[in-house]
Amino acid sequence: MDRLNATRISPQSISVLAATVGAQIEGECAIDITYLCTLEPGHEGGLSFLAQGTYAKHLGECQASAVLVGPKQVRPDGYRGCFLRVESPYYAWAQILHQFGNHSVWGSEAIDPTADIHPSAQLAPGVRIGAHVKIGEGTVIHPNVTLYPFTEIGAHCILHSGTVIGSDGFGFAPPRKKSAGLEKIKHIGQAILADHVEIGANSCIDRAVVGATYIGQGTKLDNLCQIGHNVRIGESCVLAGQVGIAGSTTIGHGVQIGGQVGIAGHLTIGDHTRIGGKSGVTRSFGSNMEILGYPAEEASIFRRKFAASNMKPRS
Amino acid sequence: MDRLNATRISPQSISVLAATVGAQIEGECAIDITYLCTLEPGHEGGLSFLAQGTYAKHLGECQASAVLVGPKQVRPDGYRGCFLRVESPYYAWAQILHQFGNHSVWGSEAIDPTADIHPSAQLAPGVRIGAHVKIGEGTVIHPNVTLYPFTEIGAHCILHSGTVIGSDGFGFAPPRKKSAGLEKIKHIGQAILADHVEIGANSCIDRAVVGATYIGQGTKLDNLCQIGHNVRIGESCVLAGQVGIAGSTTIGHGVQIGGQVGIAGHLTIGDHTRIGGKSGVTRSFGSNMEILGYPAEEASIFRRKFAASNMKPRS
Amino acid sequence: MDRLNATRISPQSISVLAATVGAQIEGECAIDITYLCTLEPGHEGGLSFLAQGTYAKHLGECQASAVLVGPKQVRPDGYRGCFLRVESPYYAWAQILHQFGNHSVWGSEAIDPTADIHPSAQLAPGVRIGAHVKIGEGTVIHPNVTLYPFTEIGAHCILHSGTVIGSDGFGFAPPRKKSAGLEKIKHIGQAILADHVEIGANSCIDRAVVGATYIGQGTKLDNLCQIGHNVRIGESCVLAGQVGIAGSTTIGHGVQIGGQVGIAGHLTIGDHTRIGGKSGVTRSFGSNMEILGYPAEEASIFRRKFAASNMKPRS
Repeated sequence: MDRLNATRISPQSISVLAATVGAQIEGECAIDITYLCTLEPGHEGGLSFLAQGTYAKHLGECQASAVLVGPKQVRPDGYRGCFLRVESPYYAWAQILHQFGNHSVWGSEAIDPTADIHPSAQLAPGVRIGAHVKIGEGTVIHPNVTLYPFTEIGAHCILHSGTVIGSDGFGFAPPRKKSAGLEKIKHIGQAILADHVEIGANSCIDRAVVGATYIGQGTKLDNLCQIGHNVRIGESCVLAGQVGIAGSTTIGHGVQIGGQVGIAGHLTIGDHTRIGGKSGVTRSFGSNMEILGYPAEEASIFRRKFAASNMKPRS
Repeated sequence: MDRLNATRISPQSISVLAATVGAQIEGECAIDITYLCTLEPGHEGGLSFLAQGTYAKHLGECQASAVLVGPKQVRPDGYRGCFLRVESPYYAWAQILHQFGNHSVWGSEAIDPTADIHPSAQLAPGVRIGAHVKIGEGTVIHPNVTLYPFTEIGAHCILHSGTVIGSDGFGFAPPRKKSAGLEKIKHIGQAILADHVEIGANSCIDRAVVGATYIGQGTKLDNLCQIGHNVRIGESCVLAGQVGIAGSTTIGHGVQIGGQVGIAGHLTIGDHTRIGGKSGVTRSFGSNMEILGYPAEEASIFRRKFAASNMKPRS
Repeated sequence: MDRLNATRISPQSISVLAATVGAQIEGECAIDITYLCTLEPGHEGGLSFLAQGTYAKHLGECQASAVLVGPKQVRPDGYRGCFLRVESPYYAWAQILHQFGNHSVWGSEAIDPTADIHPSAQLAPGVRIGAHVKIGEGTVIHPNVTLYPFTEIGAHCILHSGTVIGSDGFGFAPPRKKSAGLEKIKHIGQAILADHVEIGANSCIDRAVVGATYIGQGTKLDNLCQIGHNVRIGESCVLAGQVGIAGSTTIGHGVQIGGQVGIAGHLTIGDHTRIGGKSGVTRSFGSNMEILGYPAEEASIFRRKFAASNMKPRS
């Protein structure tokens, strides 16, 4: 789905964008930019950024029409788009998001008049809904839920009290000068819930920087879960209470995650894998696995180590 | 207390219930069913279910008048009630809860007119109270608290902002067909807080499937705690911030639980036991113990292992 | 900053205070008490308490004019103030806080008329603000945030939905009699956020017992964090989701804390130290360190141990 990877902006010429961040233009750069997008896979007509060397491997396949890059970035085979070369790509990205991203504030009404709410949806007292929100058929929203602007909730979803969907993700660029503070990365993407999703009380699902944080059809989250920006969760997953998933991690279909599990950012968990309660997941895992521990490993290995620690002589 | 184990329904004949879920009737089944109840200990006039073999040991002592059982379940000595034999007892239970359980939605008013609130209770702005809620003498409820229908709060309790009491527990039956999704288990039980209970900000206490989730007199919970469905906590316990207790676990009196502890479901923790911060408790423990670690064990063992890991030669 | 360590009360003579708690007066005790204060460093004109022997080391440097002490407490060199000797200093402290501390309840209005809110601040629907709250220039408060009485929010802060600032910290004195319950410690201090602080959705920052819980300039907290009473966090720190910091811990400047980290109470973490995700910190650490694990230790040690556990023969 394209909108998972890109957020539309009003069209800008490359030269205007380059001037905004003091960038040198390199390569085929005649196109207007109409999206801000992720690096992987990117989006035609989109601008993305490459801040860290570890993500350079994605550049060859990147579909973005332009990419903010640092002083030493080499153009890989396969990438034919425009380079906007700057001193600090992350800081330049922050500037672009701030200047060209859509902006929407809260009005004075509890339910913003621009929200598109299916007539069969049930909204309890104290629900707060921002601009351009969409809510599908038969969805039930319990009291004191907050939906930030641009959020989309599918059909037949249930959102329990205190849940917050679409608040800003947690991203800050380092200070430019010694005296300055952290620079907020403006989040202009969305949080999207597919149909038949249930979210427990006081859980939080952040909006994406660009594109969307996405919860797949039929997936159920328990209370007090934290889903970071640009996370994607597949269909029919089950996340128990107090699970936290850091930014840009992808979870497959039918994954079961025990209570208080933490999963670091930029990882991939395969379909139908089960993660034991309180595990701390620091690397990617494939499909149909059972994993456990801190740092998490295959459950059989974790159990063997624990058994071994019990067999040692106790001095 | 009976209502901890059973939730009243309008009386149904066994034959109507059996027809609803396509069950075969076996045994003494003339009685009308007036409760949906837990398996352990069950309730006279009640219907319960037995889905997993590990709980079959409770059936001999079960007081339920009828139990949904699977194709191979043998009738144990001591159980004289009715068997409703079905292919999938959990799915049949989900159907029964859905069809015969009480149902209550949010009205348009912030405080439902059917709520029974003691005149001395103090309710701050933004408190949302559902139908049939009871609130005792001198209880203080801070802003933006949500009490779901059928919740009961005792006298002299304090509920801090953002707390959610009585939202649905986290229970889903597996899909019946390959193409279908997870089946929501409707929760028709209650959340009950005894007198002098204090609940920190943004904590969540789920309602029971049937019967009640129960917090005993004088027990104090810190912020951001998660208490699952059908959990029971005794008197004068202290739970620090971000503790999570999974469904159907029983905590004794005077138990002290450190911050970020997780306790798995269906366990028992004895009176006056202390659980060290961030422990992951995966089995039951007795009274007056000090436990620690992940998986949690006696604190002395945990400390000995950690000391030993420091003494090993470092290659 | 003095108000971090002390909260003003209406002036009381030592003899009135002593009579209230049945204390024996010892030493230079002519002064009136105008503050209730911390033990370390205390405050001139203030009354504090010393309940546990481990904190007696702070008494020599304590600036409080009077201290509640237990039956066996010896007067150290350097402390010239008044001793109020009682059977249980903590219980006496609880009584003093209850009787002489300021008290403020919620009125019927969503925004208390005594709140001092800069005209440029933006308050979304569903925000609840208690008495004597201060909010600085350009601060943005998203829906369903609750600010308890006496909270102070600096300029250019962002508070995301569901956040609760200034709720009571978690403190209870043991029962006096066998039949009695835990005694609530009344919290009369503040929660103070400096300028350019951002707090994620559904996070909680407790008010201090006396003095203030303090979040330094430019510090950013992610969603679902828990900050206990009297915690102090320096400037430009970054706390990821679901972090918990227990009472009276001090965090330096530029500290980075990974998701789901727990830090025990009464510790100190030095400037620019980085704490890996899901660590459990049980002792103080210095500056510029990288720490990890449960219990947390230097990251290099943790990694060496984990590597060693993988190299062992598997039986």
